Amino acid sequence: MNSTMQNYQLTIGAILRHGQMIYGDSTVVSVGSAGRQSISFADVALRAKRLAAGLRALGVGPGDRIATLGFNTQAHLEAYLAVPSMGAVLHTANPRLHASELAYTIQHAGDRVLLVDAELVDAVTAILPQLPTVEHVVVVASSANAERAAVPQALRRSVDEHATQYRSYEDILAPAHSAAPWPVLDENAPAIICYTSGTTGEPKGVVYSHRALYLHSLGLTSAASLGLSERDRVLPIVPMFHANAWGLPYAAWFVGADLVLPGRDVRASAMCELIAAERPTFAAAVPTVWNDVLHYSTQSPVDLSSLRMILCGGAAVAGSLIDEFEARFAVPIIQAWGMTETGPLAALAFAPKHLHGATSQQWRARTGRVLPGIELRLVGDGGELPWDGAAVGEIEVRGPWCTGSYHHDPLPEKFDDGWLRTGDIGAVHPNGFIQITDRAKDVIKSGGEWISSVELESALMAHPDVVEASVIGVPDPRWQERPLACVVTRAGANITPQALRGFLASRVARWWLPERWSFVAEIPKTSVGKLDKKALRARHASGALTVHTWSE
Amino acid sequence: MNSTMQNYQLTIGAILRHGQMIYGDSTVVSVGSAGRQSISFADVALRAKRLAAGLRALGVGPGDRIATLGFNTQAHLEAYLAVPSMGAVLHTANPRLHASELAYTIQHAGDRVLLVDAELVDAVTAILPQLPTVEHVVVVASSANAERAAVPQALRRSVDEHATQYRSYEDILAPAHSAAPWPVLDENAPAIICYTSGTTGEPKGVVYSHRALYLHSLGLTSAASLGLSERDRVLPIVPMFHANAWGLPYAAWFVGADLVLPGRDVRASAMCELIAAERPTFAAAVPTVWNDVLHYSTQSPVDLSSLRMILCGGAAVAGSLIDEFEARFAVPIIQAWGMTETGPLAALAFAPKHLHGATSQQWRARTGRVLPGIELRLVGDGGELPWDGAAVGEIEVRGPWCTGSYHHDPLPEKFDDGWLRTGDIGAVHPNGFIQITDRAKDVIKSGGEWISSVELESALMAHPDVVEASVIGVPDPRWQERPLACVVTRAGANITPQALRGFLASRVARWWLPERWSFVAEIPKTSVGKLDKKALRARHASGALTVHTWSE
Repeated sequence: MNSTMQNYQLTIGAILRHGQMIYGDSTVVSVGSAGRQSISFADVALRAKRLAAGLRALGVGPGDRIATLGFNTQAHLEAYLAVPSMGAVLHTANPRLHASELAYTIQHAGDRVLLVDAELVDAVTAILPQLPTVEHVVVVASSANAERAAVPQALRRSVDEHATQYRSYEDILAPAHSAAPWPVLDENAPAIICYTSGTTGEPKGVVYSHRALYLHSLGLTSAASLGLSERDRVLPIVPMFHANAWGLPYAAWFVGADLVLPGRDVRASAMCELIAAERPTFAAAVPTVWNDVLHYSTQSPVDLSSLRMILCGGAAVAGSLIDEFEARFAVPIIQAWGMTETGPLAALAFAPKHLHGATSQQWRARTGRVLPGIELRLVGDGGELPWDGAAVGEIEVRGPWCTGSYHHDPLPEKFDDGWLRTGDIGAVHPNGFIQITDRAKDVIKSGGEWISSVELESALMAHPDVVEASVIGVPDPRWQERPLACVVTRAGANITPQALRGFLASRVARWWLPERWSFVAEIPKTSVGKLDKKALRARHASGALTVHTWSE
Repeated sequence: MNSTMQNYQLTIGAILRHGQMIYGDSTVVSVGSAGRQSISFADVALRAKRLAAGLRALGVGPGDRIATLGFNTQAHLEAYLAVPSMGAVLHTANPRLHASELAYTIQHAGDRVLLVDAELVDAVTAILPQLPTVEHVVVVASSANAERAAVPQALRRSVDEHATQYRSYEDILAPAHSAAPWPVLDENAPAIICYTSGTTGEPKGVVYSHRALYLHSLGLTSAASLGLSERDRVLPIVPMFHANAWGLPYAAWFVGADLVLPGRDVRASAMCELIAAERPTFAAAVPTVWNDVLHYSTQSPVDLSSLRMILCGGAAVAGSLIDEFEARFAVPIIQAWGMTETGPLAALAFAPKHLHGATSQQWRARTGRVLPGIELRLVGDGGELPWDGAAVGEIEVRGPWCTGSYHHDPLPEKFDDGWLRTGDIGAVHPNGFIQITDRAKDVIKSGGEWISSVELESALMAHPDVVEASVIGVPDPRWQERPLACVVTRAGANITPQALRGFLASRVARWWLPERWSFVAEIPKTSVGKLDKKALRARHASGALTVHTWSE
């Protein structure tokens, strides 16, 4: 007996058509230098078709790579829709990478065309000599002024130094009547390549298939997940070059949720103003952004009343941040867990319906449960570990939007019999709730026992005078390794290691209490806003940190 | 460039594991002769594994067909989970079919084992001589008493007449320790076969792949669709032998929504009692059931306050039914459109966020918008028609859970270049909202123009004294065809054709007003509760209907 089902391919083109045909009057609001502009899904879809025709006119064919270097804008969304749907591959390059890393990823992906925001053109021009595969730089400007400001200077350089052609984004859009129908594609064809901003070695490329992105998008609309629908207005503050803004642009488009794209300025003041004006129901960003919003709200009035939920991820979310948003704004922060390798969304920390003795807030401060689509196992040295909330091992996942290798770099040590080794260490509760205690590489092993840097950081962040905290392991003659707590305190606060130890004492095991403390002006961040422990360790190793040592 | 994604298969086994591991303490409530029983997902999953081992012990192997003949019960759910996950194919046979049709489907599917509810054993035994492929009849009883009552009589016959073995369901469940791990399956492997209760010709088999059912289930959890989640308690009144209870058992299991399975008695009194006691948040049934509930509520107090929505489909839903549920119970009835060939859910009639001049209720009384996953087009004699709310043609769909042929019966006339011809006739509004006016075979063509039987029925149902109405086309010497309205009136009502024509006059075009009227005790129904127009036409052709003719 054979299935009688249609042979239907799950593609970005299908997502594009659905948003266009069923939700054509949903809107995209985009913030640019000329202010906020609004456009319907139907018109964005038409422009995406014109973009595809324009790229074809530049010589782009099936399988070719097109990079974007841009903020969250309407044009970036058009590229998200057009490039995969025409059979090419979108490389959402990360402009916050170091120039040499950025050049590495563009070369590694073999990009032929760069779509670059006007503000970033000079940075690209500077590395063009290292980018022999690049034939065209297309300048995206939110206004004619911004384009004039960016292009002439770049053009001058190009004539002098390089054969690469500069074009204007609006100029390459083909006339509507010349746009061809979208091609029929295989769902396993590549659609997007993202590079992990790995804290070790060169960036590694994850190539999402159409199928993976389609299923991730559908998964995000599940009520067991983010529950996005036409009734939402989605504000992705997380950049579209950071794991595809966590998949929100595709998911929102698929179900006709309005999109509010914040452009370049995502400081707390700008975000609070945008939220008050556009009244999104849903916003997403790393913890740093929400911390900033919290501190901003102590000085200025803030209206977050339109938000039904905030999605927060990219790093562990402190329970205190969740509590403060609940108390001050009545907005639930739901933390997400995942990584470029997992689509990126793999788990969400909604409180389960049966609380099993914990409070709703306690569950939400843990890592979360895997989404429908993602499978989980916990692995220790001796094989699979039980989900008893106690056994600690590495989290492994598999699923239709998880990677099984890396572009031109299979890295077999990252995989285990078809499962992805996430590098996250933790326990799993009997109800499937993950509780991550560390990245494998951040684990602190003191006298043979593990100390969770994540739990120490979360406990420190609960102190009213602590703005940020990062805990790293440093060599110790007696215990092999001990925690060093690096803390950013609130301006004007006067707090001692002794007081912080006292604060921690009721929250973590006594032998976890750090003896080493460093008060720093800021915690270094990676290009996507995560605490950069590699940089912190380097500062400590070079003697650049002032360390106070204290114990009872 | 190739995708780096994992090769992950979308299977019922993955749904089974997700519900078991992440939502193990969600519950299934099942109504049987011994009352209501509750069991956790974890325990159901364990029993499904024991069932699979038991079926293997009976000789069932990959690709073998296992039929169920049963109501909505825990055992039926166990078969839903176990049979596809073990690599066999579940045939959800329809006990309401005529015996010869039932025998036809069992033979056509080649079923080796029948899992039969105790109350239905005698019906199966009666047709066993026509079922040479059947080797085992497994009797499912909700209590030991019911089993004793059913089995001995059947066993007696079996010894006398037939080599088929009778077993007890509880007896074939293997011990837990002997259950083997679930096999790894291809997502395109067959999982379930359903026969359409077509109103013409022999039943036709639709074979769902694992992939189709997985995607349909995930799609049903989308907030753009039913939005099922752990926070729901789902009451499928629609039978599990009717297009898989519209996919609700799998979707609910996938996201940990509790299931309330009503068993055999689904009369209004029993359903209202069950809803009041178990407080489901979501219930699904054909319009007849909700009409019955409405009439029951005029005599008895009814508490539907737990329901966040009612899903209603299988036939067009009268706007008056939607209005009355809104007014009397404050419960939204959302109508679904689809068919066995489309998973079955293809569209839902939620009011769109932009009402475009119509009211929310007006949109909800139309057919609906396609779900994410389903693509739609409207086709007339000259090709594709515009979505302008006026052009009328046949609705065609495609998508990952739509069929592309029939089991052992490709029926190419049902397909159009990869699209399924649904046989439904209507228009599509510019926002993608479908408005079906008729089944192709029910269309009434009067003087060369179409009259919508569906709209006439809906308009008639709005009359307070009309309980049910069905309109068919009958030959007419002048207009070729004219509508005959068959009406069931409320007990004690005294209403004339003249009054009903007057009532219709403000609601439909003047030339649509029927001249022919027949007051009947009931409208014949198909095995899945739809208005059976074929039977009505036959009654009319044989002169069995009393027809009043009246015109101004």
